[in-house]
Amino acid sequence: MEQIYEGKAKLVFASGEGEVTIRFKDDATAGNGLKKASIGGKGILNNRMTTILFEYLEGNGVPTHFIEQVDERDLRCTRTTVIPLEVIVRNIAAGSLVKRLGIERGTVLDPPTVEYSYKNDALGDPLLNDDHIVALGIASKDELAHIRKQALLVNELLLLRFATIGMKLVDFKLEFGKTKEGTILLVDEISGDNCRLWNKEGTSFDKDRFREDSGDLIEGYNTILRLLEESI
Amino acid sequence: MEQIYEGKAKLVFASGEGEVTIRFKDDATAGNGLKKASIGGKGILNNRMTTILFEYLEGNGVPTHFIEQVDERDLRCTRTTVIPLEVIVRNIAAGSLVKRLGIERGTVLDPPTVEYSYKNDALGDPLLNDDHIVALGIASKDELAHIRKQALLVNELLLLRFATIGMKLVDFKLEFGKTKEGTILLVDEISGDNCRLWNKEGTSFDKDRFREDSGDLIEGYNTILRLLEESI
Repeated sequence: MEQIYEGKAKLVFASGEGEVTIRFKDDATAGNGLKKASIGGKGILNNRMTTILFEYLEGNGVPTHFIEQVDERDLRCTRTTVIPLEVIVRNIAAGSLVKRLGIERGTVLDPPTVEYSYKNDALGDPLLNDDHIVALGIASKDELAHIRKQALLVNELLLLRFATIGMKLVDFKLEFGKTKEGTILLVDEISGDNCRLWNKEGTSFDKDRFREDSGDLIEGYNTILRLLEESI
Repeated sequence: MEQIYEGKAKLVFASGEGEVTIRFKDDATAGNGLKKASIGGKGILNNRMTTILFEYLEGNGVPTHFIEQVDERDLRCTRTTVIPLEVIVRNIAAGSLVKRLGIERGTVLDPPTVEYSYKNDALGDPLLNDDHIVALGIASKDELAHIRKQALLVNELLLLRFATIGMKLVDFKLEFGKTKEGTILLVDEISGDNCRLWNKEGTSFDKDRFREDSGDLIEGYNTILRLLEESI
């Protein structure tokens, strides 16, 4: 297979007409790439968690790029052109929001907030508002309205799913892509790498364990995955 | 009169039931206060330019806090609680937009963009999107829609007014306030301190002369003011 992209945590290969294979690596980065590590087995856990959650979202009417899990590292997906936006949905204030806006960590955001960062490492992934996105030609106003609606629907569905395993979905990052036909699909992954998940006591089971050296990442991801598997 | 506020370039005094007097200083700052100077006569020019433009906007249906010019330094205005947002309207890419998003300086933004910064020096006036503004309790969704509409109307009116004197309105910053009765008014000033104005050759006649040490600020402000006075 021809490799067409290497991200921080994944490889993407062309693997057939209109398809790609996504391979999950064990690499972890934080702070826009300043902190790096390889964490044995992380890719396998993220592949499995992404599979469970994309199957759940597809089953509830969210169009995604997911086709099937090939093996413990690889996913078969529909090929898209990724829209260069990080779509961040927040239910509880944490992370960059706390630093940037001075909102106290743990503050409930009701209604949830949606924000967009420009996927551009050279510029440091700056925050964009809707007008900037249209001005930069990243998405039209209608496409953006669709993306926002989908992101909030995914949030509602994931909040419910994680509630069944006693976890609070604090925030998460989505990406969207456009097929050759112009259909917008949810792409990328949904895992502990791009979701913040807290138990009732506020303990993190996500990548904050790595960002903040606050616990065993694999133990956290394994717990979430085991609970999801048991509750399918 | 009791002084109730001191900003970087203005003093505000309580001066009667529901009124304030705004006094224009000669102080100039740039780079979030890092660069400072006193520029003799700047306050007088800004007071006069603000008077001309607020009278023009009022005459075209935009509710503002302006009551009358008292003397060369002072304006009588309706008292409001200022909404802590810098409302920035852009017709042409310049300044922070160029640095932040990598858009080439001089790129025409069509439609114009509106962005909001949180007036909060400690946080460095961070960019906010609509959801952040609602989450922070700064304005409701409806109030924000009203502010956006007013800002775009002011843009249309100012574009026309500056076109009559051969100047391009590149971008500008507005502020809004709420009266005791809950009416939202355009407040603050409109001057070379918070507008970028270019002639046909792209020469700046605004505060960029100070920010970039690119020319005589007073000569620039005087030129704009003379052209506005001549074309009333």
